[in-house]
Amino acid sequence: MRAEASKTAAILVIGDEILSGRTQDSNSHYIARFLASLGIDLKETRVVADVEDEIVAGLNALRARYDMVFTTGGIGPTHDDITADAVAKAFGVEIGYHPEVYALLEARYKPGEFNDMRKRMARIPHGAALIKNSISTAPGFHLGNVYVMAGVPMVMRAMLEALAPELPRGIVVTSVTLSAEIPEGTIAPGLLDIQNANPDVAIGSYPFYSEKGPGAQLVTRGRDGAAVERAAQAIEALVEQFGVTPTRV
Amino acid sequence: MRAEASKTAAILVIGDEILSGRTQDSNSHYIARFLASLGIDLKETRVVADVEDEIVAGLNALRARYDMVFTTGGIGPTHDDITADAVAKAFGVEIGYHPEVYALLEARYKPGEFNDMRKRMARIPHGAALIKNSISTAPGFHLGNVYVMAGVPMVMRAMLEALAPELPRGIVVTSVTLSAEIPEGTIAPGLLDIQNANPDVAIGSYPFYSEKGPGAQLVTRGRDGAAVERAAQAIEALVEQFGVTPTRV
Repeated sequence: MRAEASKTAAILVIGDEILSGRTQDSNSHYIARFLASLGIDLKETRVVADVEDEIVAGLNALRARYDMVFTTGGIGPTHDDITADAVAKAFGVEIGYHPEVYALLEARYKPGEFNDMRKRMARIPHGAALIKNSISTAPGFHLGNVYVMAGVPMVMRAMLEALAPELPRGIVVTSVTLSAEIPEGTIAPGLLDIQNANPDVAIGSYPFYSEKGPGAQLVTRGRDGAAVERAAQAIEALVEQFGVTPTRV
Repeated sequence: MRAEASKTAAILVIGDEILSGRTQDSNSHYIARFLASLGIDLKETRVVADVEDEIVAGLNALRARYDMVFTTGGIGPTHDDITADAVAKAFGVEIGYHPEVYALLEARYKPGEFNDMRKRMARIPHGAALIKNSISTAPGFHLGNVYVMAGVPMVMRAMLEALAPELPRGIVVTSVTLSAEIPEGTIAPGLLDIQNANPDVAIGSYPFYSEKGPGAQLVTRGRDGAAVERAAQAIEALVEQFGVTPTRV
């Protein structure tokens, strides 16, 4: 069984707060796992500042190259929320109040509360479709192959959930992870041989240090489950040659 | 007091394991905080796969644009560790065994253990200086404005510590964070006015939801501490106009 060409994706995180070290980005890890569960290959992640030119340049580089781009951050009501305008600029389309979003937001606020800054959340690039926000009303949107989501993790997750049905699905990558109390350098020559003999899988070695000494997590990944299992068994046999019993984790 | 032009930096994380969702990257957050403590402005972070062309392209884009580039990952002994070769290719320089590193590693291993794959860790691009690894011997290196570090967090941190003395220092950014139990949209018009009146600071608004309802962290950042304080006090006064008392966090 060979997988068809799988779909590729990139993430663009928009956030001064990540670059300044104030906040640790958790959205990109969440999206990575989500895409993996759909069989979509995440190929690149970028974090850029809340600066229009940076967002436009990042978007245009990524959307030209990958099947899908997921952005997080910068779609709220405050002056530092400039993602929607940047997306419009990147695509060369107009932006203005989206009647449905305007009505949705107007209904949400009490009289007098729907101020000019909140109205900014109704600005959607022309031609974009909405992504439902079940948490805090103001929707995300997608235009072409770009999916624009909020930065607040709870809201981002709800948006991802909302757009899941329309995303393509591929064959999910299978993986086997072996944990072994052995220095990776000891088995590196054998691992290279196994990788060369199994070109349809990707073998990664991730060293760790515990109180027992150096160890490694040996990860075999691929879309052909039988090929993954064959390579993993070869790695098990390799580790056992050095008198160590690996465990599957 | 005006800050001199501050130094800029980017991070290039090399790691299939991050993109697959297997591992959550913690290195870039650590480096972001470290750079902030030195007064260096982190402008961009990218995560790319363990693919030579991707690493070369990312390196060349970032090193041309920023004063410094910090990479993590891909300098171990296994077949998937290809960062040193990619750096040599990006700079168009030769790569080969570095006599000092070769001797260091040879001395570390017992006879017969210093196999061909471990010898790969002695391959350093010509012209690079070493970055000491106090944890597991095999050093990182820097070439031009690129600093190449390990991916294992404990090792990466030790390398960052080792190279700290040689990094430039700038004026550290001061920040004041106010936490307020108020929807950010309510104060967004006033925040815009304060941002416009205080162009030397950057004001960010980060909404959150608690059991008390919506709130926002209002962050003022800048290199002129007095300007930061003036803007923060203006934000405090703004929030208080709505009958809410913000707290400094």
